[in-house]
Amino acid sequence: MTNTQVTLIQIDNYGPWTVTPEPRREVDLQALQSRLYADLSQLFGNRNGYVFFSRFDNMIAVTNGMTIDAHALIQESIANRYPVTISLGIGVDRTPVDALGQATSRLQEAGSAQDRTRQEILRGEMLDESQRTDEDVQIAHFDVNNATGEYTDRLNEFDTFIQIEQGYAELMRYMRMAHDSLSFFVGGDNVIAVCSTIDRPAYEDAVEHVRSTVGVDLKVGVGRDRTAQDAGMAAKRALERCREKGTAVVLDL
Amino acid sequence: MTNTQVTLIQIDNYGPWTVTPEPRREVDLQALQSRLYADLSQLFGNRNGYVFFSRFDNMIAVTNGMTIDAHALIQESIANRYPVTISLGIGVDRTPVDALGQATSRLQEAGSAQDRTRQEILRGEMLDESQRTDEDVQIAHFDVNNATGEYTDRLNEFDTFIQIEQGYAELMRYMRMAHDSLSFFVGGDNVIAVCSTIDRPAYEDAVEHVRSTVGVDLKVGVGRDRTAQDAGMAAKRALERCREKGTAVVLDL
Amino acid sequence: MTNTQVTLIQIDNYGPWTVTPEPRREVDLQALQSRLYADLSQLFGNRNGYVFFSRFDNMIAVTNGMTIDAHALIQESIANRYPVTISLGIGVDRTPVDALGQATSRLQEAGSAQDRTRQEILRGEMLDESQRTDEDVQIAHFDVNNATGEYTDRLNEFDTFIQIEQGYAELMRYMRMAHDSLSFFVGGDNVIAVCSTIDRPAYEDAVEHVRSTVGVDLKVGVGRDRTAQDAGMAAKRALERCREKGTAVVLDL
Amino acid sequence: MTNTQVTLIQIDNYGPWTVTPEPRREVDLQALQSRLYADLSQLFGNRNGYVFFSRFDNMIAVTNGMTIDAHALIQESIANRYPVTISLGIGVDRTPVDALGQATSRLQEAGSAQDRTRQEILRGEMLDESQRTDEDVQIAHFDVNNATGEYTDRLNEFDTFIQIEQGYAELMRYMRMAHDSLSFFVGGDNVIAVCSTIDRPAYEDAVEHVRSTVGVDLKVGVGRDRTAQDAGMAAKRALERCREKGTAVVLDL
Repeated sequence: MTNTQVTLIQIDNYGPWTVTPEPRREVDLQALQSRLYADLSQLFGNRNGYVFFSRFDNMIAVTNGMTIDAHALIQESIANRYPVTISLGIGVDRTPVDALGQATSRLQEAGSAQDRTRQEILRGEMLDESQRTDEDVQIAHFDVNNATGEYTDRLNEFDTFIQIEQGYAELMRYMRMAHDSLSFFVGGDNVIAVCSTIDRPAYEDAVEHVRSTVGVDLKVGVGRDRTAQDAGMAAKRALERCREKGTAVVLDL
Repeated sequence: MTNTQVTLIQIDNYGPWTVTPEPRREVDLQALQSRLYADLSQLFGNRNGYVFFSRFDNMIAVTNGMTIDAHALIQESIANRYPVTISLGIGVDRTPVDALGQATSRLQEAGSAQDRTRQEILRGEMLDESQRTDEDVQIAHFDVNNATGEYTDRLNEFDTFIQIEQGYAELMRYMRMAHDSLSFFVGGDNVIAVCSTIDRPAYEDAVEHVRSTVGVDLKVGVGRDRTAQDAGMAAKRALERCREKGTAVVLDL
Repeated sequence: MTNTQVTLIQIDNYGPWTVTPEPRREVDLQALQSRLYADLSQLFGNRNGYVFFSRFDNMIAVTNGMTIDAHALIQESIANRYPVTISLGIGVDRTPVDALGQATSRLQEAGSAQDRTRQEILRGEMLDESQRTDEDVQIAHFDVNNATGEYTDRLNEFDTFIQIEQGYAELMRYMRMAHDSLSFFVGGDNVIAVCSTIDRPAYEDAVEHVRSTVGVDLKVGVGRDRTAQDAGMAAKRALERCREKGTAVVLDL
Repeated sequence: MTNTQVTLIQIDNYGPWTVTPEPRREVDLQALQSRLYADLSQLFGNRNGYVFFSRFDNMIAVTNGMTIDAHALIQESIANRYPVTISLGIGVDRTPVDALGQATSRLQEAGSAQDRTRQEILRGEMLDESQRTDEDVQIAHFDVNNATGEYTDRLNEFDTFIQIEQGYAELMRYMRMAHDSLSFFVGGDNVIAVCSTIDRPAYEDAVEHVRSTVGVDLKVGVGRDRTAQDAGMAAKRALERCREKGTAVVLDL
């Protein structure tokens, strides 16, 4: 049974800041956002967590095993190095979507994302150390079959991008609705999903759903472990086995 | 009449590199990709260009005014600082999508994106200085009406993300099909489109299309100038005027 | 009694790389070196260690509490993100200088710093967990008395820099010769020293030595703890107390 | 005749910020400082300038060819991405030390480096475009003869560092006193000096002075050009010729 600890990272009052006193240069905002994400990826990654950039002003992390103190230290480290601050809400649940729901509520209860006085909130529930198991986090790593040969080397790059993007948009929606799972595009033709306890037929169904709906062919490797990092690495290795064996779904559970 | 110079930036042989000799840690790949993008954003930005992360292993830039030497210097600078190299294809056309088509073809003709021996390609056509005008680049900056109040402060963050993502997926497809334009999600609830010469009714039509198709309410500010940076800043200011006036489309052409 | 674990970080074959096939642009080398240092500062810092940039191609870290696995992970993370690799030698001793001596020997025995085939060495002795105490690391944080009023706001910046630099050059030499301690300039008018078990008269003597030899007035706060980070923070707080009380030496041991 | 445009970059009110409300974590300050330097190195480097980290809170740049607008854009870009702001003073003179003197005075006249209300000052004189020549900037690139064989591969790394540091401390002082030149350690065993119009005997004298005073053997390549970047690259190539020919001084003027 999965038991996922999810952290919502929200830049405080970011929208207003980007246009105060007048719109800031886009190239600086892009550098700011992507470096903030890179740093968070390392800060959470050093503690066996995963962060996804999602909307950049709101990022979502899987943080099984991370304490409230570790969260506080990350919050402080960002404040020491960036012109913006971050708020953190944390939730734990059998399904990733409900864990994120709790994490989100904790920030929403503290005030609006665009409330100037709501800064550096840190609230939430941690997974108790005694309750942790090697089945807590289930990660699925999807990619597109032969994306380079089918798309990248043949189409206008934007048309390739449209294909990947439509595949992702459909997969993210379906996995959330059908399986309470959170799917994130991570670059190239890759999507990483943080899943509830779902089995082989469910993955086969998702792959089939995306193929029949938007015509994009996926394969997926799945791993399960105590932390995001370990489950994610198992998923990557399982995906390599898909490649070698030519199969659409490999589970390493 | 727009005349857009577009550069395709492709990491050489990236997919294979990420799994050689075995899968590399995802948190490092994410840090690598997002910092590479941040650096390119600054390198092109310092020359009045814009870069969009799109798929991260393939990024798309608007580079009016940038010479082949400037491109070569950027290519060298990345090789000096990263474990990967980049190839650059450049195209110029009345429409952004055709300019990107040329840029893409130039790399495809040089070999596969996953060909180990195809490295640091630099090919393409530049916009001749004598032909440049103040109407060459048209940029549209879209955002979602009251995204914070409607979504961020109310929904589970993933459901907010789904809304934004479905709006983007629909807009990117429509703007490409109907208007030969390239639209990129840039974080939060923002999309920046590199457009051909399109007018107010076309923007109104796109906003209406997204509303009626996926139920997401957009507004858009549009700017036009000699470079991406100047056109983009005009678009941001126009978007601020949408906000002040409560209108869906403001053109500053 | 101090018992310091010291890690020597050496970029593999760096000198030759910087001029192959011809000299690389200095601005890229500077960005590469300083970002590598920033990343190491975070990677070691996330594990309660301190890194000093010293010569940038050779950096020195205090790593009490860090395992060989933690070192291996840092080594791998750098290889995943940089065009260069690093070797790590680790030593433990009563005095920091002897610990570094062991760390250095381990790399020297593995080959020259400019041997192309000597890559990613990882060798050394760790401080056994059972032997660790709250007195293992002693850190002294020095700064120059009223540097802003005396120098920065009055002299040509280079002449200020010369003063600070001569003070540092004298302090580093004296602390090493007289007290087997390693002193590092860390920016502004600050020097952090990793010390053996030395007492108040020894610090008073060092401050007096620098004043009488090169005319630079220092003060110093000293902390001691289980890790570099905790000892260093205690030293900073002690230095604040010097400032408040107007005294030259405050020990928080 | 050299004619050097020098910019002093000063972080506003940095010292107080680092200890407010209490001392900030050193590993964050180190990451902040070194990344700020890396970014400035790229921002100035993209405009053919050089920046030296010197004290990190005060950095010194050679900016021949850069306008006041380019300086303003860099200032704005840093404010958009960092929790601190920078002030810039600019001076031009036959000798680098006097150019820096003017740059320093402009900031000192605007207030103290630790005045909370003195922020983002931008003042100074630019080198007029019509007066620029290919002899404006003279750069000397020094390194230590056989540093790897003599020191790195043989001594405790701190003792190597002491040798390099004593050599640098002596060279920086001598070049400033005898030749109005500004010398900066740039990592490894390398020092880059921004020089006035000095000739071969002067370089031979400096090399001899350092050898006889502190026993460190240097060699030096010298270049001259319109910008720091071009002069610096010529100096690097000249240093390669020293290596090949086994001579102590090569001038490419």
